[in-house]
Amino acid sequence: MTRPFGDRMADAVRRTGTCAVVGLDPHLDRIPAGFLPPDADTTGPERFQALAKAVVDFNRVVIEAVHDLVPAVKPQFAFYEALGVHGWAALEQTCRMAKDAGLLVIADAKRGDISSTAAAYARAILDPNGPLGLDSVTLNPWMGVDTLAPFLEICREHGRGVFVLVRTTNPGSALLQHHGEPGAAELVADALHTAGVSLVGQSGMSSVGAVVGATAGNDARELRARMPLAWFLVPGVGAQGGDVDTAMAGVRGDGLGCLINSSRAVLFGATEDADPAAAIRARAQAHAARFAIS
Amino acid sequence: MTRPFGDRMADAVRRTGTCAVVGLDPHLDRIPAGFLPPDADTTGPERFQALAKAVVDFNRVVIEAVHDLVPAVKPQFAFYEALGVHGWAALEQTCRMAKDAGLLVIADAKRGDISSTAAAYARAILDPNGPLGLDSVTLNPWMGVDTLAPFLEICREHGRGVFVLVRTTNPGSALLQHHGEPGAAELVADALHTAGVSLVGQSGMSSVGAVVGATAGNDARELRARMPLAWFLVPGVGAQGGDVDTAMAGVRGDGLGCLINSSRAVLFGATEDADPAAAIRARAQAHAARFAIS
Repeated sequence: MTRPFGDRMADAVRRTGTCAVVGLDPHLDRIPAGFLPPDADTTGPERFQALAKAVVDFNRVVIEAVHDLVPAVKPQFAFYEALGVHGWAALEQTCRMAKDAGLLVIADAKRGDISSTAAAYARAILDPNGPLGLDSVTLNPWMGVDTLAPFLEICREHGRGVFVLVRTTNPGSALLQHHGEPGAAELVADALHTAGVSLVGQSGMSSVGAVVGATAGNDARELRARMPLAWFLVPGVGAQGGDVDTAMAGVRGDGLGCLINSSRAVLFGATEDADPAAAIRARAQAHAARFAIS
Repeated sequence: MTRPFGDRMADAVRRTGTCAVVGLDPHLDRIPAGFLPPDADTTGPERFQALAKAVVDFNRVVIEAVHDLVPAVKPQFAFYEALGVHGWAALEQTCRMAKDAGLLVIADAKRGDISSTAAAYARAILDPNGPLGLDSVTLNPWMGVDTLAPFLEICREHGRGVFVLVRTTNPGSALLQHHGEPGAAELVADALHTAGVSLVGQSGMSSVGAVVGATAGNDARELRARMPLAWFLVPGVGAQGGDVDTAMAGVRGDGLGCLINSSRAVLFGATEDADPAAAIRARAQAHAARFAIS
């Protein structure tokens, strides 16, 4: 019997003393020039292959720099898929490196589909016998919470977790998420709480988590009341500040409950880093300290 | 200046005389045994590689069998991702074969994310200089219609199209899609119509389409009134019947507007096909005839 994801994440947060996580979003226009292939004007498969190698080399440095500082990393699938089959190979290798370094991996894939298709996505990303075998995945609830079922099966059986998009903070997010009374996001929250109750570990945290945007402070407190057991994945916090209290609005009394992601602000300096490994480690230390658990 | 997607799809529908499309969903437990590798009990990367080869071999037969019968094929990304990097290679090869055979390709990926991440997904799937360069993609609107912007840019510039999830018919679909007054699906429909007005070709069809489930007959008529210019992608119609009128409820007076997908019911027989090529062609002919344009 595998330890439930809610507990595995609680262990990792307590061990590192922080709820900061680091996004592995390899923006090709920000990776230091030393990692990139020289032939910047070639195109086609060879170009994708060379860029994918640069991504792996860069991610290796990032993972070594942050592996003992944070509980988890969060690769954003889009940046890997943009390099096609070579990007997918880079994603697999990146995830292997992260797992080998003792990090939990949150697959930021935002998948959402029905029945046998959902089951195929669950195999692709979470299944320990699948190609990636990651710890958790972000999901989209628009098609209905019945779409979560194949993922929750794997969560139960193999100690995996999900983070379902409840409330984001992009300009257009309110159109659907705040629609109706109660708001649609609150409907999702209630459904996730119901789904997650039977997947709670000894830590009191469930394997069914939620994505809750960082600038949605009031929403986060309201959503915490509806989802007392859920890990909140809070995306898009910059290194240069951002309001810590706002990002942590959903934290529980026991200090657990929030995972605060930072990607570009940890990976890339304002100007190109002379020593990327040291610079990334310093920025990750600041990120971890900012969101240290009390 | 590339011809707009709405027109390219209208051309393909008129050329083949049908609004039937075929889903390329390689269910491994349904592919005829002759395609599959013998070592069914091996695991790991070698197994994925062997299965991915089987998928390509099977898809080659399907594409040859249907290429002159239907306007488009729709690979479901989940089934390829379940085979990891080898599955992604099979996806790229499948899409190349389909394009070379003159078929339009609808990427059933249901992506949905914000800003630079959405742009990366658009590069991954639609961009002619990207690894796939497909004609269109299914998208999820839950995070807001601002998430469509990077896709619509490529639609405008390169004659690509999108199909946004408006109304599905799985058991849990009503929770969010019917929530509020007007229903959330109707909000999405209105926003898509607004976004699509400036992307209408000479055919009177827009490059901004919608996914509208087949059993949502009344919804489809209502949604057609809100989206007079949109292609409706109608998933999940079985070969053995299903109500043609219900599936076609959203068709326009000019016979355009619906794309009716069938996957398993065309690809796989009730019992294993002795001659898969001939059997698939016969089932595709029946599918095309059932949804012939008038």
